[in-house]
Amino acid sequence: MLTREQIDKVVQMALEEDAPWGDITSETLVAEAAVANADLVAREPGVFSGGEVFAIAMTTLDDTVKVTLQVADGEHFDKGAVLARVSGPARIVLRAERVALNLVQRMTGIATLTAVYVAAVEGTNARVVDTRKTTPGLRALERHAVRSGGGHNHRFSLSDAVMAKDNHLAVIDDLTAALKQARKDLPHTTHIEVEVDRLEQLDAVLAAGVDTIMLDNFSLGDLRRGVEIIGDRALVEASGGITLDTIADVARTGVGVISVGALTHSVRALDLGLDISVR
Amino acid sequence: MLTREQIDKVVQMALEEDAPWGDITSETLVAEAAVANADLVAREPGVFSGGEVFAIAMTTLDDTVKVTLQVADGEHFDKGAVLARVSGPARIVLRAERVALNLVQRMTGIATLTAVYVAAVEGTNARVVDTRKTTPGLRALERHAVRSGGGHNHRFSLSDAVMAKDNHLAVIDDLTAALKQARKDLPHTTHIEVEVDRLEQLDAVLAAGVDTIMLDNFSLGDLRRGVEIIGDRALVEASGGITLDTIADVARTGVGVISVGALTHSVRALDLGLDISVR
Amino acid sequence: MLTREQIDKVVQMALEEDAPWGDITSETLVAEAAVANADLVAREPGVFSGGEVFAIAMTTLDDTVKVTLQVADGEHFDKGAVLARVSGPARIVLRAERVALNLVQRMTGIATLTAVYVAAVEGTNARVVDTRKTTPGLRALERHAVRSGGGHNHRFSLSDAVMAKDNHLAVIDDLTAALKQARKDLPHTTHIEVEVDRLEQLDAVLAAGVDTIMLDNFSLGDLRRGVEIIGDRALVEASGGITLDTIADVARTGVGVISVGALTHSVRALDLGLDISVR
Amino acid sequence: MLTREQIDKVVQMALEEDAPWGDITSETLVAEAAVANADLVAREPGVFSGGEVFAIAMTTLDDTVKVTLQVADGEHFDKGAVLARVSGPARIVLRAERVALNLVQRMTGIATLTAVYVAAVEGTNARVVDTRKTTPGLRALERHAVRSGGGHNHRFSLSDAVMAKDNHLAVIDDLTAALKQARKDLPHTTHIEVEVDRLEQLDAVLAAGVDTIMLDNFSLGDLRRGVEIIGDRALVEASGGITLDTIADVARTGVGVISVGALTHSVRALDLGLDISVR
Amino acid sequence: MLTREQIDKVVQMALEEDAPWGDITSETLVAEAAVANADLVAREPGVFSGGEVFAIAMTTLDDTVKVTLQVADGEHFDKGAVLARVSGPARIVLRAERVALNLVQRMTGIATLTAVYVAAVEGTNARVVDTRKTTPGLRALERHAVRSGGGHNHRFSLSDAVMAKDNHLAVIDDLTAALKQARKDLPHTTHIEVEVDRLEQLDAVLAAGVDTIMLDNFSLGDLRRGVEIIGDRALVEASGGITLDTIADVARTGVGVISVGALTHSVRALDLGLDISVR
Amino acid sequence: MLTREQIDKVVQMALEEDAPWGDITSETLVAEAAVANADLVAREPGVFSGGEVFAIAMTTLDDTVKVTLQVADGEHFDKGAVLARVSGPARIVLRAERVALNLVQRMTGIATLTAVYVAAVEGTNARVVDTRKTTPGLRALERHAVRSGGGHNHRFSLSDAVMAKDNHLAVIDDLTAALKQARKDLPHTTHIEVEVDRLEQLDAVLAAGVDTIMLDNFSLGDLRRGVEIIGDRALVEASGGITLDTIADVARTGVGVISVGALTHSVRALDLGLDISVR
Repeated sequence: MLTREQIDKVVQMALEEDAPWGDITSETLVAEAAVANADLVAREPGVFSGGEVFAIAMTTLDDTVKVTLQVADGEHFDKGAVLARVSGPARIVLRAERVALNLVQRMTGIATLTAVYVAAVEGTNARVVDTRKTTPGLRALERHAVRSGGGHNHRFSLSDAVMAKDNHLAVIDDLTAALKQARKDLPHTTHIEVEVDRLEQLDAVLAAGVDTIMLDNFSLGDLRRGVEIIGDRALVEASGGITLDTIADVARTGVGVISVGALTHSVRALDLGLDISVR
Repeated sequence: MLTREQIDKVVQMALEEDAPWGDITSETLVAEAAVANADLVAREPGVFSGGEVFAIAMTTLDDTVKVTLQVADGEHFDKGAVLARVSGPARIVLRAERVALNLVQRMTGIATLTAVYVAAVEGTNARVVDTRKTTPGLRALERHAVRSGGGHNHRFSLSDAVMAKDNHLAVIDDLTAALKQARKDLPHTTHIEVEVDRLEQLDAVLAAGVDTIMLDNFSLGDLRRGVEIIGDRALVEASGGITLDTIADVARTGVGVISVGALTHSVRALDLGLDISVR
Repeated sequence: MLTREQIDKVVQMALEEDAPWGDITSETLVAEAAVANADLVAREPGVFSGGEVFAIAMTTLDDTVKVTLQVADGEHFDKGAVLARVSGPARIVLRAERVALNLVQRMTGIATLTAVYVAAVEGTNARVVDTRKTTPGLRALERHAVRSGGGHNHRFSLSDAVMAKDNHLAVIDDLTAALKQARKDLPHTTHIEVEVDRLEQLDAVLAAGVDTIMLDNFSLGDLRRGVEIIGDRALVEASGGITLDTIADVARTGVGVISVGALTHSVRALDLGLDISVR
Repeated sequence: MLTREQIDKVVQMALEEDAPWGDITSETLVAEAAVANADLVAREPGVFSGGEVFAIAMTTLDDTVKVTLQVADGEHFDKGAVLARVSGPARIVLRAERVALNLVQRMTGIATLTAVYVAAVEGTNARVVDTRKTTPGLRALERHAVRSGGGHNHRFSLSDAVMAKDNHLAVIDDLTAALKQARKDLPHTTHIEVEVDRLEQLDAVLAAGVDTIMLDNFSLGDLRRGVEIIGDRALVEASGGITLDTIADVARTGVGVISVGALTHSVRALDLGLDISVR
Repeated sequence: MLTREQIDKVVQMALEEDAPWGDITSETLVAEAAVANADLVAREPGVFSGGEVFAIAMTTLDDTVKVTLQVADGEHFDKGAVLARVSGPARIVLRAERVALNLVQRMTGIATLTAVYVAAVEGTNARVVDTRKTTPGLRALERHAVRSGGGHNHRFSLSDAVMAKDNHLAVIDDLTAALKQARKDLPHTTHIEVEVDRLEQLDAVLAAGVDTIMLDNFSLGDLRRGVEIIGDRALVEASGGITLDTIADVARTGVGVISVGALTHSVRALDLGLDISVR
Repeated sequence: MLTREQIDKVVQMALEEDAPWGDITSETLVAEAAVANADLVAREPGVFSGGEVFAIAMTTLDDTVKVTLQVADGEHFDKGAVLARVSGPARIVLRAERVALNLVQRMTGIATLTAVYVAAVEGTNARVVDTRKTTPGLRALERHAVRSGGGHNHRFSLSDAVMAKDNHLAVIDDLTAALKQARKDLPHTTHIEVEVDRLEQLDAVLAAGVDTIMLDNFSLGDLRRGVEIIGDRALVEASGGITLDTIADVARTGVGVISVGALTHSVRALDLGLDISVR
């Protein structure tokens, strides 16, 4: 899921990127003994994600900084809510502020957006999942944020599940045979998913016995037809240009999985601020 | 600026994140000898950025992959334009595809958005600059994208210029003295910028002789008054909630720099696709 | 699978471990201009694995070294066979020799042992798979070697499939409910496998609908009974102390997967030598 | 010898290899608050090695895990003995279990095997030493295990002692002169060892004044003759295909050092288990 | 400035370089339980620098080592002064001794030398600054040492200020235009400095409006003339072969900055010793 | 000795330290197509060292840069000599210039100083050796420079030879027994050296049979007496405050090794310059 080691790696890299040889402002203008108390405050409502990431960003440089989370990942909050309280050496808090905010704003932005998509499919059997369209280096964090918003994750990487797309299919002569051979060669724990562009491709895929079939850019009618044909022989995933306007209809076709690239590829950072009082 | 080493670091990290033990789909379903030709195609118009990044992402795993850029960073392109052509082993091109797209879509999204802001201030003396609200790990790339869009960069990090903000000022008794002392202690090459929230703070700052004064969240009237007071004693930067609706008016107040966090904190990836034909 | 990056990482680490500040013997006693021709020769028969690893170990320090593989991974060879030919600067070949041999001997040892296990189950439907009992740092290489020997891989790591073992089951009150909840929370691509110690546990597991059930340390009779009960509701894996003496009988019970820790936890390096002639 | 830093490096690498994005089984099925008590139990007798490595593997992810070693490295233990006790968060113990076992089983296997070789030469003046045929990345640990078993180490790497083998000798015209020159060029702290294949080579080597002479693949008679010729002019090492059947006879020839590649190149992991009770 | 992370990186690298597989002397000859008390003693007078570096070098391997600094960075000390007291496991103190001394002796050497240069310009308006002629890998530490000695730093690296030297100027046709364009392209926080070799170059540079002008290898007369011409249009830096014999005269010409490569390029380590008593 | 990998590590670290986000001067003021020809010129006479290091520093960023060495490491050169010629993209040559010079100036400074010490002992049997008083991170390079100057190296690190100093001896009850035990425990390739402060300590050390005895801070008379007592039972090393004034006398006492910390602890960078012509 999201491990301490993954968070540490991102936070350390970000802190170094942001201050390769220190924070010359704080070191010049803020007394070494000054203490800062700071509140992470919501400037707009949303669904929280990244509490642990925020805390680690604040405490990595100096473990005398204390962070108390007021809201759990996945919880909804209102405008004005205090999400976390921070206390520690002012120079450290001021230096870590931007890195901590950049990470938690992005994660909370993703969780908040995901929650809207998830709400839209409520009452159906469909789960909303992310894609590999994540920010390079931040995939583990962004996938956690999707889960915070009530969404689900797709495969983590190219290494842990097969997803045969149109480009792969284009080079295969006998699709059924190729998929059967893949199943034979791969670990028995490997999930095989195949993307099809039109209903005519389904027979060959079903004959091979795959785990999930993705119907890419299908009309609602074709989606319904696909779900019917596939039945319980495979899980059905809908994909391709699905928006908030269309996702409810897609979900009602009976698909089990709806993947939405927009959850992570175009994140709006949620407006969170750090209100600092230094003494 | 943007160095080969910085790009290499991001690309290698992204490729490993996306396939820690290989691309099991391509290795199972695509023949080792298969060759792919691919076009990077614009699904919408924009301003290009990240050509070298895209090329390095495509060629890092195997230097027999060839990439020919068709459009230079900073150039405008129309929907349907071919931005780059790729040719190489199909397994490699398919494995690198998502990483290359994730990076170039983000960078082109930033350049395209920046160009809109820059166009809005045309004819004024103001430059549009980015902030430290960048994606952790990608700052060098995102700042390059801002330049591709005609924008300018602010300081790279906390280490290379002083920016005294409200939180810093809050702990200083004699601001003029503190800033003079900072000037005395810091390298003569260090730029000092101070953020003020209201006009009354200007006297103390001007008395210290700083390089830039940021007027944060000022009304248009106060901005004009600030510009007038400061004159040529410092460069003037406007900041705080400036949007496409307001930036032209802000620029016309006479400020020299307008910083816009939205250039990088909430990026919409531009829709670019890789049309692959495998043989 | 086995990527160039994974091999590079192991080879570079091994070369540095073996000569942190150079090979003082070769640098002192061998002329810089001396050229070595070397044959990788089998001192006993076996199944080859690690050709690419051997080649990378030989060429990493100096790409003027040339390696020609004479046998492909997975091929059987006789005693005395030349598996690869090497030519290059003598100092480099002598320095890389031990690292290259240590890796290829281990991999070929694993492949050769695996092939014996695989031969023993020929004619049945069972596949022989490895476990996580691999050498720390070498898992990707050792798993490749298992495939070279005709074996299959189990999950790569704790991150890419669920395997609920006795210790996990011990803390769960309602196993069926817990497994159903896990299925609900995890990505749809995640394979769920559960280990049971006795037939009585099967009902609760089957009720949850898992993908694979591992029957751990079952008698042949209980294995047969387990296969019968489970039918096609899940894949069946046998595990626990299975040896060359027993594996054929285990396979004939009808299980689909037999995991054998001994493939990698106690490797006998195959006796391969490098016959070098320096001129 | 074996430093904390070396252990940390191996353990961190192994933990990441085994769970790049967490242990999805424990995180899904084991309550965060569950505590595990575990005993490291010997399923067969042996000589212990790797206590500190085991402890570090268990505590690296979470320093609230507590490990109490019950047996010291180098101590013999019986089947059923409890070698260490572990207590801590169940998720952590379950995630670290395999890595900790893989390391301690391998080290204890080496120590146990070494002890058998060492016992076989008891009463002679010969020491049993390891070779560079170690597992890439684990040399420091495996050499420690050899010491735990009562064996000795040979040079650590190509950088810290000269060992001129047949391939080096093949390119030297005047061996005596070359070795004298090497002595002159190298640090005065550098030990020089030369391998000879037949008695006739001894004169030239002795004339140069080396520190150790390795007699490679000599018959017992020739070994005795070599020891006699060399006298106290150099230390004598026997090497080449020495097994448990032959080592006592070899030792009685009067050699000072016997190197045995089998100590590390073909390790049988000793059967140690972790008996966990979770509450 | 000098961050904990920078010090950690240098110290860890140095400790590993000095003992890749442990300190075989201490581990063989010093009892594990032995405790050492040690004083860092000045064998000659000087200005201290590197207290925190010394402490981190001593405590990195084992945080039970305690270090109490007796003198602050920048303080003058006499021969015989105790600069720091150390107490901890003898093996650790003995292993870390050389690394800790190598660093603190170098830094104190730089601070002491700098203080002499700084004293020589007392009463003038000139600051003494370092250059990029620092030891690769130690720049942050050496620049801190310059500050300890009362000196100032020049730009940290090629990335954070423009310094146009003769070689750059040689390729520019219209210098004024080029510098104006650079100002236009670069962040508004970037300081621009230009080096000139003769007075005739000043007009073109002044016309462009740069921040600092370096007068390289000027006679005292020309320096005075340059200062006069430039007035308050730019800061003036003198550079080139300035020694302790000449620096006072240079300072009296009215320049604001004097850069001295000798502060760091040819350091004499100050003679500090560690007096250890082990019990 | 000095490996390509060691040089690469230092050079890459230095280039990144010196330009974390590029060389903003060259990128702004030098045309991308400009080509530089540069000569590495001696501003004073000396003994060259670091040719390969200089070449790697120049070519690491861009392998189209060409470097031709005109003088070999260890060769004497006169003032004005051209030591190397460089040709390549001007931006790259200008960016790498300072790093390349910092390294080659330091190494050549060490070689030149060493050669003076070595000349002073000509005609005696003593070798001049370095110590562990090297610059952290640069030990391999500095030791190579000592060899370039005709000096010899002492042990590389704490890991590869025993050196028992006064602090170690202070904690040992029975020195002879302790040293014999160490010999018994350590690899047979490990050299044992013991430092003594006065002649009375010799008996106990000689009784243990060590390889080298260091006479620390002995008068010339005591050195002669020590050499006489020790005879051929061990190599004799003189150490402690030996300068150019005293080294010849020390050498004539008959010692075999003279260690001089000043070779590396207080390096004067030799004055080498890069004369660049850009077109």
